[in-house]
Amino acid sequence: MNVLIIGAAGMIGRKLTEAILRDGGLAGRKVAALHLADVVAPTAPDAPGIAVTAEAADLAAPGTAARLVAGKPDVIFHLAAIVSGQAEVDLDLGLAINLDGTRALLDAIRAHGPGYCPRVVFTSSIAVFGAPFPEVIPDDFAPSPRTSYGAQKLIGEILVSDFSRRGLLDGVSLRLPTICIRPGAPNAAASGFFSGILREPLQGLPAVLPVERDVRHWFASPRSAVGFLLHAAAMDTGPLGHRRALNLPGVAATVGDQIAALERVAGRRAVELIRPEHDPMVAEIVAGWPRAFAPERALALGFTAERDFDAIITAHVEDELGGRIPVLEGAGGT
Amino acid sequence: MNVLIIGAAGMIGRKLTEAILRDGGLAGRKVAALHLADVVAPTAPDAPGIAVTAEAADLAAPGTAARLVAGKPDVIFHLAAIVSGQAEVDLDLGLAINLDGTRALLDAIRAHGPGYCPRVVFTSSIAVFGAPFPEVIPDDFAPSPRTSYGAQKLIGEILVSDFSRRGLLDGVSLRLPTICIRPGAPNAAASGFFSGILREPLQGLPAVLPVERDVRHWFASPRSAVGFLLHAAAMDTGPLGHRRALNLPGVAATVGDQIAALERVAGRRAVELIRPEHDPMVAEIVAGWPRAFAPERALALGFTAERDFDAIITAHVEDELGGRIPVLEGAGGT
Repeated sequence: MNVLIIGAAGMIGRKLTEAILRDGGLAGRKVAALHLADVVAPTAPDAPGIAVTAEAADLAAPGTAARLVAGKPDVIFHLAAIVSGQAEVDLDLGLAINLDGTRALLDAIRAHGPGYCPRVVFTSSIAVFGAPFPEVIPDDFAPSPRTSYGAQKLIGEILVSDFSRRGLLDGVSLRLPTICIRPGAPNAAASGFFSGILREPLQGLPAVLPVERDVRHWFASPRSAVGFLLHAAAMDTGPLGHRRALNLPGVAATVGDQIAALERVAGRRAVELIRPEHDPMVAEIVAGWPRAFAPERALALGFTAERDFDAIITAHVEDELGGRIPVLEGAGGT
Repeated sequence: MNVLIIGAAGMIGRKLTEAILRDGGLAGRKVAALHLADVVAPTAPDAPGIAVTAEAADLAAPGTAARLVAGKPDVIFHLAAIVSGQAEVDLDLGLAINLDGTRALLDAIRAHGPGYCPRVVFTSSIAVFGAPFPEVIPDDFAPSPRTSYGAQKLIGEILVSDFSRRGLLDGVSLRLPTICIRPGAPNAAASGFFSGILREPLQGLPAVLPVERDVRHWFASPRSAVGFLLHAAAMDTGPLGHRRALNLPGVAATVGDQIAALERVAGRRAVELIRPEHDPMVAEIVAGWPRAFAPERALALGFTAERDFDAIITAHVEDELGGRIPVLEGAGGT
């Protein structure tokens, strides 16, 4: 089968690429060709027996979507997005990529006409939900985004569901939890501290905590995120009916829960590297974010995630740190 | 103030035009100019002291939206739509008008930049909801459209909410109940019989009932629909926050309730003009439609509708039949 990943240069895209090449197959079939696209050209890793190609492609540019699906890929992962902060600052850019780019992709697929009905896995986000909401959000709770990013993702979901209902494609929209622990350097995203207060101390480095410890949020590891995408590519979509967007399993954890897990995995010294420094702006943004879900549909459909925060930290240690915990080995200084 | 009605030639658009001209004002202010647009040129009624103009305008054509809002109307009613059946048959046409047309309008408004923030009243529909849903749908229940029309209306709502949250316009999206009794000739819409089984017998004419009497649905009169639009133009939108779409009050009635009300208002002879003739296709479509709502937000915000089906029939007799009930006067034959 032929597979296309749009947005392949991002953190999840790279891990998904690795997983597909490692498995050599997808949805029980051998992968013959994997094409990687992103606004900057992704790296095309060598893989025996799989033709891996990569290109720089602007989904908002006329003709890009049609070119990307010209070879009728069997599975299309659409991960490309202008992220939350940027889409809020630049409405035109967010609309161009997140809405028009997604629309262009879906229109390019249906332009092939009957006989072509690829599996489309679209990454949405829990950002489609905005307060007020219950402490635990059920599957049938109405999204009401408080960001343009969330609004644009929600519109993408609706198009994926409607085009799937019409048999023009076979889509699944995944409302990803906040991904934690994000590897790499600290960034300026309002959610960045959720990863930073674990990632830096594990390395023996200091981290700042801008909110109270009772702040509760909904998390899954990068490993689980890749697992969601692979499962969405392989699953029987029949039971989804016309409702193609799924709230996904995750771990509901307070910052206090995160820190307690850090201490269990990496010791007291790691925890002491976290310095509380209240940031009212971050605190206010985070207060509008979902705290927990009851993702019954996704669980029934076989999606799985970590069961507690210890497992999320352990996944990071295994996948990013080669099984070592630098702070336990005396890394960093005080 | 200046008022623009897009989609002014339709049944609701014409009644809204009449109501604004009769009142001479809107939202407590005098109306100086009223511009009417539709894909076919609406009639521009004479009205002393109000400059009423009309034009044929295709919202999907480049430049149309910008031209319509060039004069910075204070209130914009956006009623234009490709309706349910047609949007299902012709996906491109539905997307062009219901999605791209709405987007073009909202983009044209924000192109004026800061200082222009008109009230935008957007007619959505209970078609944003699709089964499965509870018998009585609460305000925070997730929409999941089963038609492309419902999907496109839902996308319009999301854009109206996001652009309102950003202060680019001041929008309200109204999820209209099924409008009953629709005046005029019978039409081919699947919902047509809900009006037909009342409208024709009131005239002494026969009507066909294609579903069982226990089918329950959610209704408001054309008079209430106009009332919703006028209230949405005048209301304080502060309490809406970023959630600009409203489920509206209406009457939850079974076909049996409708017929019982008809008998109370128009007598036994009217009811005898209804001939049951089961249509499995219509019955299946209607089975996927909402049955009742608990529209608490809209009620708290001052929206009102009829309390029972007798009132809906009476509104039709007053507004369309000059207060007369032809079947009671011996109209029609048996």
